[in-house]
Amino acid sequence: MMKIDVLTLFPEMFSGVLGQSILHKAAEKSAVSYGVINFRDYADNKHNSVDDYPYGGGAGMVLMPQPIFDAVDDLKAKATSGKTRVILLCPQGERYDQRKAEELAKEDHLIFICGHYEGYDERIREHVVTDEISIGDYVLTGGELGAMVVIDSIVRLLPEVLGNEESHMKDSFSTGLLEHPHYTRPADFRSWKVPEVLLSGNHKLIEEWRNKEALRRTLVRRPDLFEKIELTKSQQKWLEEVKKEYE
Amino acid sequence: MMKIDVLTLFPEMFSGVLGQSILHKAAEKSAVSYGVINFRDYADNKHNSVDDYPYGGGAGMVLMPQPIFDAVDDLKAKATSGKTRVILLCPQGERYDQRKAEELAKEDHLIFICGHYEGYDERIREHVVTDEISIGDYVLTGGELGAMVVIDSIVRLLPEVLGNEESHMKDSFSTGLLEHPHYTRPADFRSWKVPEVLLSGNHKLIEEWRNKEALRRTLVRRPDLFEKIELTKSQQKWLEEVKKEYE
Repeated sequence: MMKIDVLTLFPEMFSGVLGQSILHKAAEKSAVSYGVINFRDYADNKHNSVDDYPYGGGAGMVLMPQPIFDAVDDLKAKATSGKTRVILLCPQGERYDQRKAEELAKEDHLIFICGHYEGYDERIREHVVTDEISIGDYVLTGGELGAMVVIDSIVRLLPEVLGNEESHMKDSFSTGLLEHPHYTRPADFRSWKVPEVLLSGNHKLIEEWRNKEALRRTLVRRPDLFEKIELTKSQQKWLEEVKKEYE
Repeated sequence: MMKIDVLTLFPEMFSGVLGQSILHKAAEKSAVSYGVINFRDYADNKHNSVDDYPYGGGAGMVLMPQPIFDAVDDLKAKATSGKTRVILLCPQGERYDQRKAEELAKEDHLIFICGHYEGYDERIREHVVTDEISIGDYVLTGGELGAMVVIDSIVRLLPEVLGNEESHMKDSFSTGLLEHPHYTRPADFRSWKVPEVLLSGNHKLIEEWRNKEALRRTLVRRPDLFEKIELTKSQQKWLEEVKKEYE
């Protein structure tokens, strides 16, 4: 069973997300167990401070090393696994992607460190953190939402977590292409109609339409994705046909 | 005041995040007001279904257009603003970044549509959605975490939402460079020491050290960021000095 610990000053932020849907079901199925810990509880000063002014002056506060080092030491000692990945969410980190999610999903024990508008003392990055991760090029109030995103992407990959219905959503990144359009009832909604081919019952034509539309969407929106995948002979032919439509 | 509505099948997921920290304070200060709506309430069929099998066959379910169109129509009618941006979170969307956050922060009314392992009927994308957004190249269980990420990044930009302490975290993307390292007490932690220059009291040297370290970190981790910014004369000189260390 994977153990996921989160160090945060806002543990209540996690209740809604960890208590619902797949993340909750995964814990019920004993695929994972979550610990959400307020690292203020590890502060060894009389005011329970976790941050202090930066050396060298300037605005903003900086998270002190002591509470975080002691919390990580304690969580490692309690873990049954011999190996722990300690993940820091920050804008300076490695850009998160599905490959990284698959890598982390193989681990036994993950600790997430979430700062919250404070900076981190550099010694935290250098001596306790194993992975610095950024979920994207935008600024968030803290690391908590980043941790939730990474946790969600990992837990859904654990064995037996997803049912058939949910596993459908894998499509987008597992084929390397963006997904083709989907349609459901009604066939005519506010006079916008479902493409004829999908109502035809001709499975070969439907398959071809879906492949071409997936290729089209990737071509129009994310042509960079083509660099990472190898197309089949049929896909190459379909892509050429799609490209001709734009000439 | 900005109005943010969220359409989801898992409204409870949002309670922890919207009820804490900056997002909560922003609502208390009347900078923003949140509505989290279960779009199942808008289903006009007797089983309150929101999804159905895909036309053309295949695994997985597809969100029907009717409940979402009716929910958006209703929320638009209730809004005081004349203009609404309707945002769909999905892997096929435009890659989210800070520029987009700044653009959306100027709007009066945002509606977020969060699917949850179902696909979306294409007519939702074509006829009701104004912006398709992806927060990164990884697969999540649903759009909810993406919506929370986008909401957090927008709300912290609204006027008077951030106090001085919090606004510090802006640094990373507002200068276009990654942040320099931070240090706080103690000066010696487990025999790892704070760099001498930060204890020197020489503000000119400290400024130069910070600039060089920000340039170094950007050079090592995210050289692509240099393409988007213009360096000052001093920064150019410092960058050359840093580069020499790696030759």
